[in-house]
Amino acid sequence: MSIDSSSAHGVNFAEPRSFPTVFKSNFKETLFPDDPFGHLKNEPCSRKTLKVIEYFLPIFGWLPRYNLALFKYDLLAGITIASLAIPQGISYAKLAEIDPIIGLYSSFVPPLIYALFGSSKHLAVGTVAASSLIIAASIEEVVPASEDPILYTSLVFTSTLISGLVMLALGVFRLGILVDFLSHSTITGFMGGTAVLICLQQLKGMLGLKHFTTHTDCVSVVRAVFKNRKEWQWESALVGIIFLAFLQFTRFVKQRRPKLFWVSAIAPIVTVIVGGLFAYFGHADKHGIPIVGALKKGINPLSINRITFDPKYIAGPLKGGVVTAMIAIAEGIAIGRSFAIMKNEQIDGNKEMLAFGLMNIVGSLTSCYLTTGPFSKTAVNFNAGCRTQMSNVVMAICMMLTLLFLAPLFSYTPLVALAAIIMSAMLGLIEYEKAYHLYKTDKFDFVICMAAFFGVVFISMDMGLCLSVGLALIRALVYVARPATCKLGHIHGSNLYRDVEQYPNASDIPGILAIQLGSPIYYANSEYIRERILRYLKTEQSDATLKGTGHIEYILLDLGGVSSIDITGVGAFVEIMRILESKEIKMILINPRLGVMEKLTVTKFVEKIGKESIFLSIADAIESCKFSMKSSKGMSVVEVNVA
Amino acid sequence: MSIDSSSAHGVNFAEPRSFPTVFKSNFKETLFPDDPFGHLKNEPCSRKTLKVIEYFLPIFGWLPRYNLALFKYDLLAGITIASLAIPQGISYAKLAEIDPIIGLYSSFVPPLIYALFGSSKHLAVGTVAASSLIIAASIEEVVPASEDPILYTSLVFTSTLISGLVMLALGVFRLGILVDFLSHSTITGFMGGTAVLICLQQLKGMLGLKHFTTHTDCVSVVRAVFKNRKEWQWESALVGIIFLAFLQFTRFVKQRRPKLFWVSAIAPIVTVIVGGLFAYFGHADKHGIPIVGALKKGINPLSINRITFDPKYIAGPLKGGVVTAMIAIAEGIAIGRSFAIMKNEQIDGNKEMLAFGLMNIVGSLTSCYLTTGPFSKTAVNFNAGCRTQMSNVVMAICMMLTLLFLAPLFSYTPLVALAAIIMSAMLGLIEYEKAYHLYKTDKFDFVICMAAFFGVVFISMDMGLCLSVGLALIRALVYVARPATCKLGHIHGSNLYRDVEQYPNASDIPGILAIQLGSPIYYANSEYIRERILRYLKTEQSDATLKGTGHIEYILLDLGGVSSIDITGVGAFVEIMRILESKEIKMILINPRLGVMEKLTVTKFVEKIGKESIFLSIADAIESCKFSMKSSKGMSVVEVNVA
Repeated sequence: MSIDSSSAHGVNFAEPRSFPTVFKSNFKETLFPDDPFGHLKNEPCSRKTLKVIEYFLPIFGWLPRYNLALFKYDLLAGITIASLAIPQGISYAKLAEIDPIIGLYSSFVPPLIYALFGSSKHLAVGTVAASSLIIAASIEEVVPASEDPILYTSLVFTSTLISGLVMLALGVFRLGILVDFLSHSTITGFMGGTAVLICLQQLKGMLGLKHFTTHTDCVSVVRAVFKNRKEWQWESALVGIIFLAFLQFTRFVKQRRPKLFWVSAIAPIVTVIVGGLFAYFGHADKHGIPIVGALKKGINPLSINRITFDPKYIAGPLKGGVVTAMIAIAEGIAIGRSFAIMKNEQIDGNKEMLAFGLMNIVGSLTSCYLTTGPFSKTAVNFNAGCRTQMSNVVMAICMMLTLLFLAPLFSYTPLVALAAIIMSAMLGLIEYEKAYHLYKTDKFDFVICMAAFFGVVFISMDMGLCLSVGLALIRALVYVARPATCKLGHIHGSNLYRDVEQYPNASDIPGILAIQLGSPIYYANSEYIRERILRYLKTEQSDATLKGTGHIEYILLDLGGVSSIDITGVGAFVEIMRILESKEIKMILINPRLGVMEKLTVTKFVEKIGKESIFLSIADAIESCKFSMKSSKGMSVVEVNVA
Repeated sequence: MSIDSSSAHGVNFAEPRSFPTVFKSNFKETLFPDDPFGHLKNEPCSRKTLKVIEYFLPIFGWLPRYNLALFKYDLLAGITIASLAIPQGISYAKLAEIDPIIGLYSSFVPPLIYALFGSSKHLAVGTVAASSLIIAASIEEVVPASEDPILYTSLVFTSTLISGLVMLALGVFRLGILVDFLSHSTITGFMGGTAVLICLQQLKGMLGLKHFTTHTDCVSVVRAVFKNRKEWQWESALVGIIFLAFLQFTRFVKQRRPKLFWVSAIAPIVTVIVGGLFAYFGHADKHGIPIVGALKKGINPLSINRITFDPKYIAGPLKGGVVTAMIAIAEGIAIGRSFAIMKNEQIDGNKEMLAFGLMNIVGSLTSCYLTTGPFSKTAVNFNAGCRTQMSNVVMAICMMLTLLFLAPLFSYTPLVALAAIIMSAMLGLIEYEKAYHLYKTDKFDFVICMAAFFGVVFISMDMGLCLSVGLALIRALVYVARPATCKLGHIHGSNLYRDVEQYPNASDIPGILAIQLGSPIYYANSEYIRERILRYLKTEQSDATLKGTGHIEYILLDLGGVSSIDITGVGAFVEIMRILESKEIKMILINPRLGVMEKLTVTKFVEKIGKESIFLSIADAIESCKFSMKSSKGMSVVEVNVA
C-alpha cells in the first residue's frame, strides 16, 4: 500500500445504532443463531405459513414425499431397532428399579410422538442407562423402591413429566445456549463414570445376589458385593460370563467388519431368546438363576392419575427430572448432530428439545419413563439404513405387537442375561481413548473430564456433573478475565505486523509499541488489560534504555480482535490514556469494530482521544506516527538553528 | 504490498511449546498479571532480597527516604482525618450495634498495621457504613444485639477475624481475579442501595425512636418508623434537620470551592462538639434527645479470648465476614487505585489484600471491628495533602490521645448528631448521575446496577449483591457463548478487509467469503460458530444466485482475533471443513495466533487442512485463491478447446 492511498480510506465515525436495533440484533444472535425463518423473508404469505408449520411439525416436510422405496429401508431399520428395544427396555427398567414392562411401554408411545415433531432422520428413540440410574438414585432418596413400589413408580412418571416440561421450556425459550455449557469433556467423563457404576451394579445380577445397596457410588457398591459373598451363585456367574463373552465377540466382529453391524445389533435379542429358552426348559430359577417374572399382555395403560406433586416427595423427581433433562438433551442433540453431519444435514437443537419435551410429556401420561435418543440404538438405526423418522414408527408398531402378543414369553428371561446386555453396552461407553486424546491435546479438558469421571464414581452422579461443569465454567471465566494479548513486530518485506513471540523475526518499530488486544474488554478484564499494557510499556522502556534506542512515543492498540467493550472497559482506556499522557506517550487505536466504535462514541471517548488518533490499519497508523516523529524532530532541529 | 513479497513471509508452523512452558506462562498471566518481580531478573542477589522485603513491607521503601518536609504535610492530613475518624467511628459503631468505643478503637490499631504493609500513599484506614450494616444484619440473624450484647460483640470480632483471614488468603493465593468480577455497575448499585437503607435506618435516631426493627429491608424499616409514630420526638427531629442542613451546606461549599474541602472535612467533628456542648448545658437527654452515654478511657483491650467459633453461631459471622471481605476489598482497592491514578502511581491489588487482611486480623484481636479504606476519609486525606502512609500513623496517635484523655467528653454526643453525620455521608453515595450515565451508555450495565440497588433495598443486602453479580456473570458467559463475527469486504484503494456492516462501501470479493471470528473458540461457543459460519454461507449463496455472480469457492476464516481454542473448537473446525468439502468449497485459515496454532498442530488439524491453506494475511490468501481460480478456469477453457 502506498502512502497516498492510505488517506483514501478512513475510519467510520458514523452515529451509533439505536438501542432497539442493537438489542434486537444481539437478542437474535443469542437465541436464534441459526435464523430459522431467515429464508422466508421474500416468500408469499401462504408459503410462509406452510413453511412455519413444517418447521414445527417436520413430518409435513417428509411424509408427502414418502414412497415405498424409502419404506423398504425404514421397515428393515425399524425391525432391527425393535429387536434391540426389547432387551434394552427390560434391562434399563430393571436399572431404574421399575416394572420391566414399563421399559417396553417406553418404546411404543414416545417414538410415535418423535416421528411427528422430531427433525433428525436417524435418531432412534429409547430409554438410556445413565438416565435410568439417575432417576433411580434421586427417587430412592425420598422413597426406596423396595418399600413402596407403587409410589416409587408414580414418582418415576412424575420425574419423566418434569423432565419433559423442562425440555419443552428450554426449547420454547430457545435456551439451547444452556446445553452449550455441557462440554464434550464433561459428557465423556460423565458417561464413562456412569458406565463404570452401572457395570458394578450389574454384579448384583451377574452373581445372583438378593441383597444389595441403594447407593450408587463405587465404594458402597463394591462393599455390598463383598459383604454378601455368601449369596454368590456360581451358576449365575458362569452363564453371565458366557453371555457377556458372546456379546463382546459380536461387538468385536462389528468393529472388524462394519458391514456385519447387524450381528451385534441382534445379539441382545438372541441373548434374551436363548436365555429364555434355557431358563424355560432348564428350570433355571431352581438352579440359582433368577428370572424376570410375570409380564402382563396389553399396551400402555394411562398414567395421568399416577402423576403426583406431593411436596413430601417432590424433591426426588424434581432433581431427577432436571438433571436427566439436561443430560438427555445434551446427549440426544449431540448424537443427532453427529449423524446429521455424516449426511451433511443440519439439526436445530432448540427444535429437538421441543420434540424431546413433548415425547416425554405424552410418555409420562401413558406409563412410559424417560426416553431420549441413545447412541447405540441410533447407530444401529443409521447402519441399518433408515431413511426417515418412519423407522421409529415401525419400531413402535413392532413394540405394540410384542406388547399385545409376546410379552409373557419374555418373563422367562434370566436376569443374568439382562446384566450381561447392560454390561456389554456400558463397556462401549468407557472411552479411554478419548480421555487419552484429551490428555495429549488439552490438559485442562482432561482435568474437566476426570473431575466428571471420578466425581461420578466416588461421590455421586450429580456432584460429579456439577464439579465438572463448575471447572469448565471457571475456565470460561478465566478466558474472559485474562484475554491473550501480544506485542506486534514488523514482518520484513510486507506491511504485516504480527506477534513477536510467534514470529521471532518480526522486528521492533523504533519509538512505537504496538499491542494486539483480543476478546471482549469489560469489567472482568479491564483492570488486567490496563496492567498488562503498562507492563509491556515498562519492559519496552527498560529494553530501550539497555539498547540505547530512542524512547517510546506512541502506543498502538490493535482492537481488530476486540469484539465488544463495556463502560468499565472504556474507563480503563481513559485511565491508560491519562497515565500515558503524563509520560508524554500518545495512545493510538487501530480498527475498532462496530460495537466497540459505537461504545467509544457514546461514551465520548472518541472526542477525548481525537478522531485523528484512530486508524483503520496498523500500517496507516505507523506511517502517520513516523511522519509526525520526523517532522517534530525536524522542527526541533529548525528551532535549534533559529536559536 | 506487491505479489512477489507475499511469498517472502509465511506462517510459523513451529513445534508447539511444551506443556510446562504453556502452563507456566498461563499461570503467570492469570495470577501475576503485574509481574511484581519481573524487574529483578538482572539484579544482584542482595539487592533482590532487599527488593522482595520492600515488596512485602512497603514501609522499607518510603521510611528511609522520609524527612521533615514530608512530615509537615502528613501531620496536617493526619490530624484532619483523625477529626473525621472520631465522629465516624462512633456513628458506624452505632450502626453495627456495638459499643461506640469500639469504633474509636478501630481507628487506632489498624492504621498502624496498614502503615507497615499498605502500598497506597493516600488511603486512610477507617470503618465503613455499608460493612457495618452488613455485619449487624448477618449477626442479628443468629444473636440479636439487644438479647446478648456481649456474645454479639464477640461475634462481631469473630466476623472481623474471618474477614481478615479471607482477605489474607485471597492475597496470598493472588485471587485478586475474584474481585474483578465485582463490576463497577454492581458496586454503584450496591452502594446506592445500602446508602438508602442506612439513611432510612437513621430515621430512628433522627426521630428519637426507642423501638425499631432488626430487619434491614426498606419495607420493614418504613413500617417500623410509622408503627411507632407515638414515639416521634419533634425536638430530636428539629435538631437533626439543623445538623443535616449544616453538613449538607459544607458539602455544597466544598463542591463549589474545592480549596475549602477542609470545611466539610471538619464539619462532622464540629457537629459532634456543638451537639455535645448543647447536650451538656441544655440537659438534652431530659428533653427527648438521647445521648451516646458512658465512654470509658483507655486504649484497646485485647480481645483474643472473645473470638468464638461456636458452631451454634458461626453461620452469622462467617456470612458477614466473607461478604464484607469481598466488598471491602473491591471498594478499598478501587479507591486506592483511583487516587493512585491521579498521581500516576500503581497499586497492586493482591498486595493491598494482604495489608487489609493483616490489619483486620490484628484488629480483631485488639477490640477493633472491620476496617478498610473508606472513600470519604481517603478523599479528605488526599485533599489535605498527605504524602505517605505516615498520615495514618498520625491519625492513630491522635486517636490514642483521644482514647487516653478525651473519650468521656464524647459521651454527651447526641445520637441525632450521629444520625445526621451518617445521613449526610450516605446521601453522597447515592450516585444517581452515574446510574443515568450507565443508562445512557450501556443498558445492560444499568440493569446490573439496578438489580443491585433494588435487590438491596427491597430484599436483602446479600441477595441484591448475588443477583447483580449473577447477572453480570451471565452477561460474561453470553459474551463467551456468542462471540461477535462479521463478514469482511474489500476496502477500495487498499489491501484492507473490514466488516461490511461497519464499512458499507467495502465490496464483496467474487467467489470468496471472508469471515472474521473473534474471542476464544471453545466448547461453549463452537456450536454457535459452526452454525453462524454456515448461515453466512447460506445467505451469501442465495445472494450470489440472485445477483447471478459465481458461486462461492473459498471460505476464509480470519483467526487474528481468536485468542485461544480448545479441542471442541478444533472439532467444530473439522466439522465445518467436512461440510464445506461436500459442497466443494475450500476452507482457508488466516493468521492463527500462537496458542491457536499450537492447538491446531497438536490435534493434527494442520495436517488435515494442509499447510498451504493457512495464510498470514487475508491479502495473501485472496491473492492465492484468485490465482488458482483463474488457473482452474483457464484449465477448463483449455479442456473445452481440446474437446
